Amino acid sequence: MEDIKIIEVKQSVFQNNDEDANRLRESLKQSKTFLLNLMSSPGSGKTSVLLAVSKYLKDKVKMAVMEADIDSAVDTATMLEAGVPSIQIHTGGMCHLDADMTRQGLKELGYEDYELVVLENVGNLVCPAEFDTGAVKNMTILSVPEGHDKPLKYPLMYETSQLLVINKTDVLPYFDFDTAKVEEYARMRNPDIDILYVSAKTGEGIPALADWIYKSVQAWNQ
Amino acid sequence: MEDIKIIEVKQSVFQNNDEDANRLRESLKQSKTFLLNLMSSPGSGKTSVLLAVSKYLKDKVKMAVMEADIDSAVDTATMLEAGVPSIQIHTGGMCHLDADMTRQGLKELGYEDYELVVLENVGNLVCPAEFDTGAVKNMTILSVPEGHDKPLKYPLMYETSQLLVINKTDVLPYFDFDTAKVEEYARMRNPDIDILYVSAKTGEGIPALADWIYKSVQAWNQ
Repeated sequence: MEDIKIIEVKQSVFQNNDEDANRLRESLKQSKTFLLNLMSSPGSGKTSVLLAVSKYLKDKVKMAVMEADIDSAVDTATMLEAGVPSIQIHTGGMCHLDADMTRQGLKELGYEDYELVVLENVGNLVCPAEFDTGAVKNMTILSVPEGHDKPLKYPLMYETSQLLVINKTDVLPYFDFDTAKVEEYARMRNPDIDILYVSAKTGEGIPALADWIYKSVQAWNQ
Repeated sequence: MEDIKIIEVKQSVFQNNDEDANRLRESLKQSKTFLLNLMSSPGSGKTSVLLAVSKYLKDKVKMAVMEADIDSAVDTATMLEAGVPSIQIHTGGMCHLDADMTRQGLKELGYEDYELVVLENVGNLVCPAEFDTGAVKNMTILSVPEGHDKPLKYPLMYETSQLLVINKTDVLPYFDFDTAKVEEYARMRNPDIDILYVSAKTGEGIPALADWIYKSVQAWNQ
């Protein structure tokens, strides 16, 4: 396995994270880099979905991944094995990343070389939604075993995401997961949210997700 | 459905949460009330496990539940329908409860009347582990679909919990979940952690969990 680059990011010195996030987005616009912020609960399948979708994307766009975790580097190892340039960000116990922490990772990555950078945020449905990372778009994953009531309990995650990906559709027969309800609850929080269904395990729906990301990258980088 | 009591808790005024948590535990000792702090990711099955275990416990001990969420009262409704006295705590967007927020809920509940109070914390593997709620014991649930690597990524949750409950064992055949590894990783974080396997859906393992809680209540309240 390749050596894994682990960045220990420091807490932001900026008072106003929203302004800082806007500055970061301007830099990303200039370098024609699309930053996608990927959020979910622990264990929803962020890395598995990313792995599946990267097979479709990596020959079409220059992409890289930043894996954020409190500890461990297991997800970065997974992405590197799949041939996707990746670094590990350690948050020093923090439950989220803000724009400056994201910038520290992007600089280490050398983001100007990439058209698409995916930030896999800390697994958490609460804190990451509260901080603008400077990403162009936010995507959240909800997996079938978690239940369809999550948009009721964690409103901000769905308000701030442009795309909701329902993962683990292969186990729909074994869980009481109501797709009509999850769509109703998610749109209650955000009427404009896009919703896609995938199974990282079987590959179902992954091409449509790759297409969504690819079109977003093109729109930003043109 | 009964009217649901919803408490909007305020952020603590105390500088030192650890001291405040110790004070709360002393009050609980005096009133012979065992407070169990239940933590997990969103969708691990906190409410389902609690519902299943309450069938075994509610005739043996006087028990009540406090459901903490950022929004909604769906879990409290579920517990009330099952005949368990319950109140809903809203955290005003906060990702955790501290000791003083817990105390606000306990007072509204009238905790002196109960031998066992279960606090269902906000669904989150990070922040709740950072704040002592004043509970006598911490229990964390990890569900099979989340994967066996969680103790590697979220160390503090496992360090601060006395009991790890692996839920959704009924779907073990459909997921790559390694029970030997999860036990190894959890004990790496906390050598003394107890580990139990349950399925809230089929009822497997629930009597053993009820027994663990019952014995803890007895040890505290004698």
